[in-house]
Amino acid sequence: MPDKISATISPEGSLEVLSQAEVNRLRDTSAAGLHDLLRCCALAVLNCGNPTDDGRAVMETYHDFDIEVLQEDRGIRLRLSNAPAEAFVDGKMIRGIRELLSAVLRDVVYVYNEIQTQQRFDLSTGEGTTNAVFHILRKAGALKPGRDPSLVVCWGGHSISREEYEYTKDVGYHLGLRDMDICTGCGPGAMKGPMKGANVAHAKQRRTQGRYLGISEPGIIAAESPNPIVNELVIMPDIEKRLEAFVRVGHGILVFPGGVGTAEEILYLLGILLHPDNRDIPFPVVFTGPANSADYFARIDEFLAYTLGEEARSRYQILIDDPVGVARAMRRGIDEVTEFRRQQQDAFYYNWRLTIDRDFQAPFEPSHDAMAALALNRELPVHELAANLRRAFSGIVAGNVKDKGVRAIEAKGPFRLSAEPELMRRLDELLTSFVGQGRMKLSGDYVPCYTLG
Amino acid sequence: MPDKISATISPEGSLEVLSQAEVNRLRDTSAAGLHDLLRCCALAVLNCGNPTDDGRAVMETYHDFDIEVLQEDRGIRLRLSNAPAEAFVDGKMIRGIRELLSAVLRDVVYVYNEIQTQQRFDLSTGEGTTNAVFHILRKAGALKPGRDPSLVVCWGGHSISREEYEYTKDVGYHLGLRDMDICTGCGPGAMKGPMKGANVAHAKQRRTQGRYLGISEPGIIAAESPNPIVNELVIMPDIEKRLEAFVRVGHGILVFPGGVGTAEEILYLLGILLHPDNRDIPFPVVFTGPANSADYFARIDEFLAYTLGEEARSRYQILIDDPVGVARAMRRGIDEVTEFRRQQQDAFYYNWRLTIDRDFQAPFEPSHDAMAALALNRELPVHELAANLRRAFSGIVAGNVKDKGVRAIEAKGPFRLSAEPELMRRLDELLTSFVGQGRMKLSGDYVPCYTLG
Amino acid sequence: MPDKISATISPEGSLEVLSQAEVNRLRDTSAAGLHDLLRCCALAVLNCGNPTDDGRAVMETYHDFDIEVLQEDRGIRLRLSNAPAEAFVDGKMIRGIRELLSAVLRDVVYVYNEIQTQQRFDLSTGEGTTNAVFHILRKAGALKPGRDPSLVVCWGGHSISREEYEYTKDVGYHLGLRDMDICTGCGPGAMKGPMKGANVAHAKQRRTQGRYLGISEPGIIAAESPNPIVNELVIMPDIEKRLEAFVRVGHGILVFPGGVGTAEEILYLLGILLHPDNRDIPFPVVFTGPANSADYFARIDEFLAYTLGEEARSRYQILIDDPVGVARAMRRGIDEVTEFRRQQQDAFYYNWRLTIDRDFQAPFEPSHDAMAALALNRELPVHELAANLRRAFSGIVAGNVKDKGVRAIEAKGPFRLSAEPELMRRLDELLTSFVGQGRMKLSGDYVPCYTLG
Amino acid sequence: MPDKISATISPEGSLEVLSQAEVNRLRDTSAAGLHDLLRCCALAVLNCGNPTDDGRAVMETYHDFDIEVLQEDRGIRLRLSNAPAEAFVDGKMIRGIRELLSAVLRDVVYVYNEIQTQQRFDLSTGEGTTNAVFHILRKAGALKPGRDPSLVVCWGGHSISREEYEYTKDVGYHLGLRDMDICTGCGPGAMKGPMKGANVAHAKQRRTQGRYLGISEPGIIAAESPNPIVNELVIMPDIEKRLEAFVRVGHGILVFPGGVGTAEEILYLLGILLHPDNRDIPFPVVFTGPANSADYFARIDEFLAYTLGEEARSRYQILIDDPVGVARAMRRGIDEVTEFRRQQQDAFYYNWRLTIDRDFQAPFEPSHDAMAALALNRELPVHELAANLRRAFSGIVAGNVKDKGVRAIEAKGPFRLSAEPELMRRLDELLTSFVGQGRMKLSGDYVPCYTLG
Repeated sequence: MPDKISATISPEGSLEVLSQAEVNRLRDTSAAGLHDLLRCCALAVLNCGNPTDDGRAVMETYHDFDIEVLQEDRGIRLRLSNAPAEAFVDGKMIRGIRELLSAVLRDVVYVYNEIQTQQRFDLSTGEGTTNAVFHILRKAGALKPGRDPSLVVCWGGHSISREEYEYTKDVGYHLGLRDMDICTGCGPGAMKGPMKGANVAHAKQRRTQGRYLGISEPGIIAAESPNPIVNELVIMPDIEKRLEAFVRVGHGILVFPGGVGTAEEILYLLGILLHPDNRDIPFPVVFTGPANSADYFARIDEFLAYTLGEEARSRYQILIDDPVGVARAMRRGIDEVTEFRRQQQDAFYYNWRLTIDRDFQAPFEPSHDAMAALALNRELPVHELAANLRRAFSGIVAGNVKDKGVRAIEAKGPFRLSAEPELMRRLDELLTSFVGQGRMKLSGDYVPCYTLG
Repeated sequence: MPDKISATISPEGSLEVLSQAEVNRLRDTSAAGLHDLLRCCALAVLNCGNPTDDGRAVMETYHDFDIEVLQEDRGIRLRLSNAPAEAFVDGKMIRGIRELLSAVLRDVVYVYNEIQTQQRFDLSTGEGTTNAVFHILRKAGALKPGRDPSLVVCWGGHSISREEYEYTKDVGYHLGLRDMDICTGCGPGAMKGPMKGANVAHAKQRRTQGRYLGISEPGIIAAESPNPIVNELVIMPDIEKRLEAFVRVGHGILVFPGGVGTAEEILYLLGILLHPDNRDIPFPVVFTGPANSADYFARIDEFLAYTLGEEARSRYQILIDDPVGVARAMRRGIDEVTEFRRQQQDAFYYNWRLTIDRDFQAPFEPSHDAMAALALNRELPVHELAANLRRAFSGIVAGNVKDKGVRAIEAKGPFRLSAEPELMRRLDELLTSFVGQGRMKLSGDYVPCYTLG
Repeated sequence: MPDKISATISPEGSLEVLSQAEVNRLRDTSAAGLHDLLRCCALAVLNCGNPTDDGRAVMETYHDFDIEVLQEDRGIRLRLSNAPAEAFVDGKMIRGIRELLSAVLRDVVYVYNEIQTQQRFDLSTGEGTTNAVFHILRKAGALKPGRDPSLVVCWGGHSISREEYEYTKDVGYHLGLRDMDICTGCGPGAMKGPMKGANVAHAKQRRTQGRYLGISEPGIIAAESPNPIVNELVIMPDIEKRLEAFVRVGHGILVFPGGVGTAEEILYLLGILLHPDNRDIPFPVVFTGPANSADYFARIDEFLAYTLGEEARSRYQILIDDPVGVARAMRRGIDEVTEFRRQQQDAFYYNWRLTIDRDFQAPFEPSHDAMAALALNRELPVHELAANLRRAFSGIVAGNVKDKGVRAIEAKGPFRLSAEPELMRRLDELLTSFVGQGRMKLSGDYVPCYTLG
Repeated sequence: MPDKISATISPEGSLEVLSQAEVNRLRDTSAAGLHDLLRCCALAVLNCGNPTDDGRAVMETYHDFDIEVLQEDRGIRLRLSNAPAEAFVDGKMIRGIRELLSAVLRDVVYVYNEIQTQQRFDLSTGEGTTNAVFHILRKAGALKPGRDPSLVVCWGGHSISREEYEYTKDVGYHLGLRDMDICTGCGPGAMKGPMKGANVAHAKQRRTQGRYLGISEPGIIAAESPNPIVNELVIMPDIEKRLEAFVRVGHGILVFPGGVGTAEEILYLLGILLHPDNRDIPFPVVFTGPANSADYFARIDEFLAYTLGEEARSRYQILIDDPVGVARAMRRGIDEVTEFRRQQQDAFYYNWRLTIDRDFQAPFEPSHDAMAALALNRELPVHELAANLRRAFSGIVAGNVKDKGVRAIEAKGPFRLSAEPELMRRLDELLTSFVGQGRMKLSGDYVPCYTLG
């Protein structure tokens, strides 16, 4: 039985001056159906000392956890019941966790309400969506006008081997030594390693304003608690807006070994970079891992070459077992980004110029029907194929780690995917190689959440 | 001929991270009819080195002044043509003025748009109006959660005698020595003196975060440029919201000698404090001036006693020729406010608890008809009479200093006021005494902008 | 009878971490004979709200003032008896005054002891003296490594006309608008005006770290209390080290109208700048005043040309009635200083490169004998004549305002000066013109403290 | 072959404003014989990325390393030849290392000179020595007046097992969560673990001003490089002043498992705390380690009880395998220290009140003769026996890790110790148990650097 604590606390950092109407809206979480969402995200944050990738287990362990917003004239307070004891020291909540809790409230309830219910943004258009992403990030203070480009987005698996984890720390360390900051999707593994490494390097370089930005979304946060180093947390409304946030705030992207989720992110990124309008926009992308991950990236490289062609290859480089080389390549790449934006008078803090096709913005709900309907063949325009492949991988991730997806699979059996034969063969091969490398989340024997056919 | 300068500058302080849609909205000032408003307020700010209370003269001198919002990806820039040269030093705009210009943009265009066009607030209700005032002040950063109550609102005339001006400086100095900050309506005279005095005292006390908050409105800013010490500027949409802002952010109110405008403010304030719901809310109010202003306050005191009764008198004290006594009384009063809010768990930065009747919130347009229709007799409930008297004085101020009012008087002759005979006699006596004391703005012979009858 | 207050306070700012031995040394002021010095300087600081140039009157008014250093383990406290009430607000000492009091303790007792009794510096050599000046300034925190050159030393009279005072404020304002800081000798008049003006300009330019550096010495501080704006105070051991401090920390020098003391300072400055080793060192010097001071500077200009020759004229410019021109000239001059030091890799904060002859460093005690012995003729090398003229003026200042000098004159009659006839005539003429312009301190009829012959 | 780099750099942090005489003194390291000392300490700092406890090996690897102080008018620069490449990132020295290098210069050359050559302090007296320790710490900025007591001194071995190292990190983490800072002797093992743990906890608690204070001395720094987290470094002139620095700045002391050096420190500490004058001074002392270190502390506890008696036991507590308990005990203890100092009006930053006998201050030079002459029997007063035992252990440490000691042993064979038989037996037993636990530094077979006889 884990220790649990009940307490009333003040959130900290961004909710100090609320109007009475705003406080009322925060309280009234039931009506808007936000209470469950709030409870789930708050628990993820409070549980950040107990890393696990099993969101459902967390919810079961803390089934009696609850959070209530109390209105007081001077602001709001939170009444927590049966919260994880690790979030407290001698009865006082750890300050960093209190800040993350404040971020949850801000994003899940306040911003959510604003975006969803007020209809200030037309989310059916590209412009409206990009604008909404911008407003959520600005509200979170994640757009910092006075800073030189330095934000490296790190993607990769949350359950990787010890050796790979140490490698991500090492890369983060060398990034940090070169004055770069880290942005990841929250959680353990490749999401945490680079932050830990950069944190040590920043201490050595006396970089006191180092940024460790976590961007999550409600469906994933329970399984991927923000690790303790995250000092800025943003919860985007859905996967697609989260991905858009990554590519608009990041100045370069590093991909560590991962599983299907990582492949999804790679396809998303390349699908965008291959858009003709984006051809001349510099954007450093590096795939990297320790020596024994060479095969992983070789398989992906092959698959990308077959599906998206040689041009796709020109948008990334693969560097194996070379943390210093990775850090230098990223530094060079970001310096080019800086120079480019200066010439174009573009903002450093948000990449407005990047064109993102609607296909990559529209939320994809991986139902059995939707998965079955995906067109997966090489006759499609490259960006469209990339978009569909991304959706296919997204669905597989959902079937693996997301509560709703897992339950759908339990109820209706695996998703069915259809594709042209050779592509299907290669896709199957790729996924099988992930299984072979232990990169697929399995309980018991290998029962993948999809079938091809 | 005044020196004029044309230049392109970046505003500073609160507009750094705008979305492209927001920049577009800012640029598109013509469509929304905001260009004239923007031009007039910007000119007032740029002209702050040339104090005058004649707004029309300023507009004529700088008839060829223009301001244009330029869109650049990294933010916005302003192209100024034929701006007052005093705003620049060797070709570079003074930084404080650049900040005030940024405040103008923020309030006049951005907030204005938000409040007016988006209909987020129902301005026909008390709650919606109070909420709108709150949001404008919050957007301006004028609500500071971490600060102890210290904000003294100073009212009084903008064209007062040298002796009275020196007195307001002296009072400001003694307030500043006791860690109090100043809020006024912008402009010269009693609006500027307390800030100048407090500024010196703050330097002596090494109070580096001293606040000099100016709250203006579009109809008055041209005639009452923010004086150079103002380090926070907010432009409220109309007189009534400006008055509400004063009483909600201020922790105490000082009234110096003034003219009709000052009388209007006193009636507004007492009308609110006399509301039964506000009876137990502490709110220090002091009327003060140098020895020769004793008569001015004696007349007002008499008039208030006659019209609003003895209870009104209990809400203020009159201290003549005693800057130290005033500062001590205000310090004591604000300490009581602090204690009260602590007990009630009320916010320090915004007085939510104060009840303000709709009569005091609804904008009053002083047309000849509206002025003639005002009921002014002692059979009305006290707060209603106070509200009507306030409107009467408001109309007289408009006829004196506001462009539109002056032109209406030129076209249709003086306003006609009707009141019960004794009240009318006393009102006339009061206004005549103002004239006798030179507190009425006159060009040439005494031709008041109103007649009784 | 002035109000007096007795209180025990903690000094603030630079004495927090003292060893027990240091605290003991501070307490033991009587043994080292420092108590009188401490008492006199502390009184000057506490009296800064009552400006006067009559040091003896202050000492008489506060004859029962006393200061005692108390030892407590955690630091020191000061027991003050019968101190000027203006230094307090409602029983609490004004924070800026507490800081200045701390500076007095630091310099008068601590540094004094260190320099005088420890013999760390050989004050009989130029190098040792320059080093001692450096250490006193460093101890006081007056050497700021991270700052661009910006410090304008302002000299001029402490009892000048209202018009001249307003002019010094105006010049200070235009210096402050151009990011320059002010250093003066403390006291009223031309010592205070530029600081007040710069303070307003700094507020407009949001220059929160503006410097108002006062450099005084024990013999003069009682008559020239630090004005309230001074935020850094240094008390040098004697006149000569004070003058050396001015020319080593200042990046340019402005001379306003004054009396004999100002003439003394001009001769000191030119004597140094005319030294062959200093020929190529840029050092902007401007003499300035309002229109009616033109004659004052014309007379001085003439006298300098006759005594020191045309070369002297090349080291200064005279700008009459032109505050903006003065500020621009000073800005340009300081920019050249910056460029020069950058090229030479010289420190910005201390002008090591300047050669100062021993004649200008050795303290001059203006006894009747010493004054009579001064050689004043044009056959001397220019720098030697400048040094002797400087001493002559110094003696005249002492006879005018310094307690000791005044008493010597009372006892033995005026000083006798001997010089070559034409020089003597011109000197007499110059001093007589000062009297004519009211620039000579006189009580009753004109009885100058010197005779020529 | 390690990578080496030659470069010219500016030190950072505390040497900005030096007089020319001070720069000359710094340069003139050869004359004062300081060059070797400077070279050795600088190398230790530059080598902090390559932890080792073999100082001689470091000196051999970098036999061609050199450091030269260059004088420039604006300050000093350092020319480094063949320095460890790990101190640099892409040719630029890591900023934290540059700061530590500045600390080395400050202490080894500047302070050293001041203390040693200027004879400002009479080091033959207790008062003079304590004063010198105070001045060195103050010069280093290690005395922070505004901070509440929070500094936990951690002692223990630099070469401990992985398990013990992880334990020290864990304890540091729980100290950091409770707002405590860490002070150690620099180097790896128990000197580094608590800092690493506290650093993570401080990040979680957003304690941005966390202190990681390293106190070293010239004879030990080469073997115990400051670990990278140290953000304040002080190099005391000798072992005894280093130990005095620990007990005067620390607010509590934690002892982790170590070897003879740790035993030396324990004896030093208890010798002082047992002094009758110190009886009532609160000073929390905790011995702690993981489960398998229970025996280590049991042996020490026994030895202390036998030699120093039961009273000694009352000054410490032993907590095994309980990081949270340790942190809570230390927090409680330091809260008592805070309360005590507040009552006594003692400084928080320096424990003046502690009496330290001359026996514990006088440097002990562990020659063969001196070691042989130590009286080690229980008839001595307790504090004297503690002092002698401390010296005996100090000599053994020298023979183990210090260059000079190691060479003396190589030349003349092991030290001879004489003691009363039972004490000797127990001492031998204790040291043998250290060997058995692998806590004695041995190369090859066990040839201890001492014999009993």
